[in-house]
Amino acid sequence: MEVSPVYMQSDDSEQDRPAYPRLFPTGEARKSDHLKAGLCVDFPVSVVLPAGGTGERTGLQTPKQFCPCLGRPLISYTVESFERVSWIQTVVVVVAKENIGLMMDIIQRFQHKKVLVVPGGSTRHRSICNGVAALGEQRRPAAHKPKVVIIHDAVRPFVDEDFLHKIAMAAKEQGAAGAIRPLVSTVIATTSEGYLDHSLERAKYRASEMPQGFTYDVISEAYKKCTESDFEFGTECLHLALQYCGTNAKLIDGPPTLWKVTYKRDLAAAESIIKETLSQSACLITGGLEAAVALANVLQKAFGALNMELNVTPDLMGGNARHLLEDWNFIKVSVDPFCPSEVEAIILALEAENRALLNPAVIIWMHLSVTEEPSTSRRTTESAALIDLASTARPRNILLYGIRLHQPEDSEQWDRSASRVADIASALIRDRNPAFVGQLLQA
Amino acid sequence: MEVSPVYMQSDDSEQDRPAYPRLFPTGEARKSDHLKAGLCVDFPVSVVLPAGGTGERTGLQTPKQFCPCLGRPLISYTVESFERVSWIQTVVVVVAKENIGLMMDIIQRFQHKKVLVVPGGSTRHRSICNGVAALGEQRRPAAHKPKVVIIHDAVRPFVDEDFLHKIAMAAKEQGAAGAIRPLVSTVIATTSEGYLDHSLERAKYRASEMPQGFTYDVISEAYKKCTESDFEFGTECLHLALQYCGTNAKLIDGPPTLWKVTYKRDLAAAESIIKETLSQSACLITGGLEAAVALANVLQKAFGALNMELNVTPDLMGGNARHLLEDWNFIKVSVDPFCPSEVEAIILALEAENRALLNPAVIIWMHLSVTEEPSTSRRTTESAALIDLASTARPRNILLYGIRLHQPEDSEQWDRSASRVADIASALIRDRNPAFVGQLLQA
Repeated sequence: MEVSPVYMQSDDSEQDRPAYPRLFPTGEARKSDHLKAGLCVDFPVSVVLPAGGTGERTGLQTPKQFCPCLGRPLISYTVESFERVSWIQTVVVVVAKENIGLMMDIIQRFQHKKVLVVPGGSTRHRSICNGVAALGEQRRPAAHKPKVVIIHDAVRPFVDEDFLHKIAMAAKEQGAAGAIRPLVSTVIATTSEGYLDHSLERAKYRASEMPQGFTYDVISEAYKKCTESDFEFGTECLHLALQYCGTNAKLIDGPPTLWKVTYKRDLAAAESIIKETLSQSACLITGGLEAAVALANVLQKAFGALNMELNVTPDLMGGNARHLLEDWNFIKVSVDPFCPSEVEAIILALEAENRALLNPAVIIWMHLSVTEEPSTSRRTTESAALIDLASTARPRNILLYGIRLHQPEDSEQWDRSASRVADIASALIRDRNPAFVGQLLQA
Repeated sequence: MEVSPVYMQSDDSEQDRPAYPRLFPTGEARKSDHLKAGLCVDFPVSVVLPAGGTGERTGLQTPKQFCPCLGRPLISYTVESFERVSWIQTVVVVVAKENIGLMMDIIQRFQHKKVLVVPGGSTRHRSICNGVAALGEQRRPAAHKPKVVIIHDAVRPFVDEDFLHKIAMAAKEQGAAGAIRPLVSTVIATTSEGYLDHSLERAKYRASEMPQGFTYDVISEAYKKCTESDFEFGTECLHLALQYCGTNAKLIDGPPTLWKVTYKRDLAAAESIIKETLSQSACLITGGLEAAVALANVLQKAFGALNMELNVTPDLMGGNARHLLEDWNFIKVSVDPFCPSEVEAIILALEAENRALLNPAVIIWMHLSVTEEPSTSRRTTESAALIDLASTARPRNILLYGIRLHQPEDSEQWDRSASRVADIASALIRDRNPAFVGQLLQA
């Protein structure tokens, strides 16, 4: 089988992107806990990601793996899920020949480091087989032939390290392992005339999902031995491992987030998961102003009521620079009219960390006005300056909005204002709508 | 079996809500076409909607059928799908005893007319059985014992008339009928130790979905004959019909929109479908102003590029009042500063039609300013008036926003402005975010 892999791996096998909290929720622990729990893998593991689908079922023209979620193609989220795992060496993405250029652009734009692009075959099995073959042929000094190959779908973007670890370990031990989920619907057998024949007893069956893991030897042997008909019509790698290598796969219950983005509505669901993950917390920068500290105090409660954490810091310098890597959302409080340089400093700091490379960051300039209303001309200038800076930030994947708030007089007013500000700010953060950048909203 | 139905049906069996285009896309025809195609049903059909689920899998505290989508509980959308169908008589909603009050509130608030609330049993089958029994015991003069009973899930909100018609007709002819969908995942049999036993040949099996239809006689006989174990552990009504009445159900391919809202992400998916449906078109009211007509002309193109239709009308009076029932979104163009009464008139007209009862309507006041900037004091008053009116409209389910646009000088500027206005307006319409009501955005 002819395979022409296209290299996009950098020579350093270590990931050189700054570390940051895991983007996607696993309901489990952070990296330091993984090490404690012994989640290290001491054998080479690589991934094959068949991505040749045509996306018929989404009702969209673009194949669904290339559809944007928050401006980034779905497949880049999937690749990110694997690149984040230190013990994964190479991610082979198998794409239809006509989409190789598109995939290379994605790799370059989002600076993916572990990806090897391989042209797909005419069926899913041929594509996976090409990917496995490419892993066997890697000739770079740093690249080992993998002990375990994980096969996943490009359109299941939310796979976490803990589950990959389970699959890799079980695959090494048993030869093959696969994710399963309970059946959502009853499965029924139909007669050829379209009538009910019988229904299956739900408890005995499971839905077979991805990822699946195999030792390199099992999966390559299965593909060597399998028939043309398997290549053409087969759906399950687990089945090939059983039939041609006698390997009974270990089945492991996977989390619901493994679901496959199939329909257009699934893209909305994926986007809602990504947005929620990016909106867990915001960082409020007081600039050391007394009024801003007071505002921060009441806002913390109001944000808490909306299930959003508010971290408060005087600035983003020294040790406080860690917020640039821990938060996706920044609120800069000011008592003076809009001064672009204050906000530009945050934009530059985010850029220096390459923070908005993968996900849009949000900056809200919050004007706590203590004096009377600004004059019309000043207001117009201010508004234009905010719009200007927002349009400069936009192509850098940084969304800049403004909120104006008149400093309230008593504590009851403070609470009311805080809750209005929190409503508006959290809506801006959760929506991440590029259409509203540069707007100065009234709280 | 003891059943205490709680009546909420009005005495007039005709629906007295104004007709409006079907909310949810069917990819098919409007009512007039249905009549042509003979979609009338000349036998009584009623519905049982088991809604006793506890919503464990969504990860939410509220059972998912009561979770809000755009401020309205999911189950109200499902009920609406059936109430919209003229040939459906009664919708029996079976809820857990502790949720009867909640369900009655929903019926009252959203003015549902065909619903009968029945307390649920301890399992899904007991609940459905209670619902079927309640249909047999209706004693109102207008209520016929149904010939066909359709059983559906409260958490599958998007069922359309065409498909219901297919199910009802097949159920009447065959005794039973059910929706099926292709399997999304391969189904595998597992050994008791958690290993792969074998995988099923996908082509021979289908996922059994809802709705299902039965003649009243078949479903009530099945429940009379079935065992305690069926009541306790059974999952499929189709299976009971086969086992106890010898009825082989006719299986009918259903559309993907029949999917079941199971996880939290599915609520986001459902909301995206509802929002998309409400955002197909907007109605721009020129007030007969020349400048507004010119704006409308360039905006039509810009909205078209965003896949939104823009209907243009001088006012909402006489024959033009039809727009109140055809559109969910209204753009009122003005060359003068904000005058609440202009917008109030639209709010009152929408209220007179009860238009925003089920879904939030959007009004955008668009200020095409031709003179110089307003003075600070006028601007402050204007802004406060818009916020005030928006907060009055909000509890009436009408979302009011503002956009200000300086009248451009040449045609190139017009096009640029039009595309910015269309971006902002379509984002407001598609998002329907209550946090931004009353804001005056700058285009």
